[in-house]
Amino acid sequence: MIGKYTKSLLLENKESYLIPAENVATVLYSHPLEHALLVLSKVGYSKIPVLDSSDHLVGLISLANIVDRMMDLDGFNSEILDGLSVADVMEVDVASLRQEDDLEDALHLLVDASFLPIVDEDNVFGGIITRKEVLKSVNHLVHEVERRYEFVAREKEVNEKLNN
Amino acid sequence: MIGKYTKSLLLENKESYLIPAENVATVLYSHPLEHALLVLSKVGYSKIPVLDSSDHLVGLISLANIVDRMMDLDGFNSEILDGLSVADVMEVDVASLRQEDDLEDALHLLVDASFLPIVDEDNVFGGIITRKEVLKSVNHLVHEVERRYEFVAREKEVNEKLNN
Repeated sequence: MIGKYTKSLLLENKESYLIPAENVATVLYSHPLEHALLVLSKVGYSKIPVLDSSDHLVGLISLANIVDRMMDLDGFNSEILDGLSVADVMEVDVASLRQEDDLEDALHLLVDASFLPIVDEDNVFGGIITRKEVLKSVNHLVHEVERRYEFVAREKEVNEKLNN
Repeated sequence: MIGKYTKSLLLENKESYLIPAENVATVLYSHPLEHALLVLSKVGYSKIPVLDSSDHLVGLISLANIVDRMMDLDGFNSEILDGLSVADVMEVDVASLRQEDDLEDALHLLVDASFLPIVDEDNVFGGIITRKEVLKSVNHLVHEVERRYEFVAREKEVNEKLNN
């Protein structure tokens, strides 16, 4: 469990945590793969969410997913992509969060994912939480916490050890 | 400045912070670009360090750097890569750290980079610090700090506000 003072400091910039859907590059699962490659090469992210035509989250697609598929026995061949769609190479086993989920869940899941898609109860995509934004809050926390609070060790031994 | 208790908790897993050079996929600046594309598509990172033959850090190369270069007026064409080397598309303006640099510097720089290359005084590559490893330490910090310490507000008003 994250203590209340720590959590409060981490959440002081909460409004900046979520990058809303309208500011996130996405592709449709039915898009041609070459279109996804174009978006990914321009957008500055190596992986983006894949939606259906009703904005439900259906997967993620990365540059590596597409480049992998371009490889044949002779090397890389972009013609292999002709006729393929995003659905053919996207990752479908995707960790996502509800907006009301705990900061604790987000911090754990972000150890293994560079961003987390946020969905509502109908799985409609609402935006992403990124390691980048969370690290801004972490910087705020670690710089502020001992300015605001004096730390008193709950067990005397621990404090003595740290002071030596 | 990061307070001493906070820093001490963040550094309790310090040995795992640095992923040593021998465990990091790299390419030589003289390698054919198609070789870099192969390494990047297999390695699970979207960007890796570029070294010279004496292990000096000379840049970073990403899947996006290469895919960008593959694009011509008609779309993507992998033949464009023929004859190009890593040096032709790598990023050379790279933030790096010395191993003795402060955790504070690393935390700030990791807001804008998913990993930081570590170099010695001769710019020889020694490994990387990643957002992933730092987030493991952050999880440790935020879960442990209020178990170990009682927080006493330095200014009474702050504490009162948080308790309401």
